[in-house]
Amino acid sequence: MSGQKVKLISLEGDARYTRLLGGAPETRGMKSGYVILQPGESVGAHSTGLKEEAIIILEGELQVILDGKFFMTAGKGQVLYIPPETQHDIKNAADTAARYIYVVAPVL
Amino acid sequence: MSGQKVKLISLEGDARYTRLLGGAPETRGMKSGYVILQPGESVGAHSTGLKEEAIIILEGELQVILDGKFFMTAGKGQVLYIPPETQHDIKNAADTAARYIYVVAPVL
Repeated sequence: MSGQKVKLISLEGDARYTRLLGGAPETRGMKSGYVILQPGESVGAHSTGLKEEAIIILEGELQVILDGKFFMTAGKGQVLYIPPETQHDIKNAADTAARYIYVVAPVL
Repeated sequence: MSGQKVKLISLEGDARYTRLLGGAPETRGMKSGYVILQPGESVGAHSTGLKEEAIIILEGELQVILDGKFFMTAGKGQVLYIPPETQHDIKNAADTAARYIYVVAPVL
């Protein structure tokens, strides 16, 4: 261990983005955030580079867009895995708010 | 990339444990599972070794036990971070079922 501590974070507020775990030195590399997308909003196309990502959808329905093209719909009660080096966007194309948590982690 | 694919997994059923992401080669190292603990049940004391863990609590209230001692209560709408090499147990001491998702990832 290098001083990381057990930590409990509450999902609060209605901000578009709330940081939950900020990476080192708070963790050994893992980052996490809480995202709320209103109808019509999207995160913006991005890649996590060499890291991989799990997205836990808490509420709503989201479009998963890969390389600019619609790939699939993902919703509440589903977990989405995004491999390293994968350009992706997440869009709320439904008419209610969507909420999710992402966890991004380094790979060996 | 080494062949990992975008994957969507649905939380289904009422099994105590459902594997969501099984590690390599499905991912580059990240593992994830869906756990349902009935009142009185606990996961059992364990450590994730050199890996770190995020626990996203979807429902219920849980006791976090570190090195055999009660440490804190964590519940729905909260995210718990467990550093590497941390012996911990998760117990449902409430009177309703609890559900959570864990994500375990290697550290650099």
